[in-house]
Amino acid sequence: VGLVVGIDGDDTLWHNEKVFSVVEERFRELLQPLVPAGTDLHAELTETERANLPILGYGVKAFTLSMIETAVRVAASPVPAAVLAELVAEGKRMHSLPVELLTAVEVTLPVIADRWRVVLITKGDLLHQEAKVARSGLLHAIHDVQVVSEKDPDTYRRVLDRAGVDPADFVMVGDSLRSDIVPVLAIGGRGIHVPGFRVWELDQADRHPEPAERWCQVPSFADVPGALERFDCIR
Amino acid sequence: VGLVVGIDGDDTLWHNEKVFSVVEERFRELLQPLVPAGTDLHAELTETERANLPILGYGVKAFTLSMIETAVRVAASPVPAAVLAELVAEGKRMHSLPVELLTAVEVTLPVIADRWRVVLITKGDLLHQEAKVARSGLLHAIHDVQVVSEKDPDTYRRVLDRAGVDPADFVMVGDSLRSDIVPVLAIGGRGIHVPGFRVWELDQADRHPEPAERWCQVPSFADVPGALERFDCIR
Repeated sequence: VGLVVGIDGDDTLWHNEKVFSVVEERFRELLQPLVPAGTDLHAELTETERANLPILGYGVKAFTLSMIETAVRVAASPVPAAVLAELVAEGKRMHSLPVELLTAVEVTLPVIADRWRVVLITKGDLLHQEAKVARSGLLHAIHDVQVVSEKDPDTYRRVLDRAGVDPADFVMVGDSLRSDIVPVLAIGGRGIHVPGFRVWELDQADRHPEPAERWCQVPSFADVPGALERFDCIR
Repeated sequence: VGLVVGIDGDDTLWHNEKVFSVVEERFRELLQPLVPAGTDLHAELTETERANLPILGYGVKAFTLSMIETAVRVAASPVPAAVLAELVAEGKRMHSLPVELLTAVEVTLPVIADRWRVVLITKGDLLHQEAKVARSGLLHAIHDVQVVSEKDPDTYRRVLDRAGVDPADFVMVGDSLRSDIVPVLAIGGRGIHVPGFRVWELDQADRHPEPAERWCQVPSFADVPGALERFDCIR
């Protein structure tokens, strides 16, 4: 079958939410002594991120700016230089962390790439995502990389147009119903959902797509080649 | 002639350095009262930017983080919340400023696009650059947009490979010798240099390419169609 397989990066091929969670925990530790009792630092940070999303987009740099903005807003007194410096340093450190692959990816992705054309489609900071792909050791099993600013139907249409791919021949594999499955179904493509441990709350789908409508869910990345091969569940 | 014309965005199609200069001036005003006498705020900021470039890349988000990092490092006492909040706000405001086209661009770009395939090739933040293109009103005269993390020979080679374009048929138009001309000549392409008012010091070429080696300089963007048409100066 002349399928083209789109694959998400963050939390589909490698851990991502985990990294953000660890840094957010450090943010809360640092800020806790500086804020009025009862301040919900997670809620405050998420609110800042939500407001900044249309302006700053996805990725670590936007997250770092949102941490700093939140710290300055909620602290009862000037935030010490050492705290601010550490927030900036954490943001920079996130860029250079090793890339930790998810279960079965290292073995399974080359199996997929042997048989079908693989395009990594990921959102976030351009330079950082390119660096993660390079560091992942997966470059030999990826035919093209597209870093996009949003994963909506227009974006997928543009990516497929540019590559000369008919949406009916396109299957997107990813952990987010909202970003990887719903918009691809909307343009006539197909999807394989590989649920992760946790989806970032700003990336949750408002509603699930109808089951059995050109998409299915598999328990692990190891099951993706079988689903592509049989094609039954995504027909 | 089946030429493909690559065009740079920042300071070739629209003002960019000017926006950074204005915000940097505000940064200096805000920080001046907080730093030891004799502190060269411009030098300190540029040094931070230079160190952050390989990690954070180009664009407004990296610049905003560099302003904050510099402020926290050089201030003699904790930076007031109002100052930090204004630095973050300036960074966000930069994302939504109107796009101010350079002289002759509005008239000349459609003339080029009527005749040749035009690909905008720009570095910076993905979402912000896409927003600038949309806001510029030039989308009808641009066939494709490629936001890249660095303008080196490998990047140009990848962009041309993806589009199936032979470097010998590619002419890059831009204001930066270092980013727009030198790397394109290195892969066998051609260049038209349109000098701007000022090139960012981290984007200066170490050395000029030899004159008359498949590139030339024209005084204004209005002269680009003529140079493409005659082809003499870029042969």
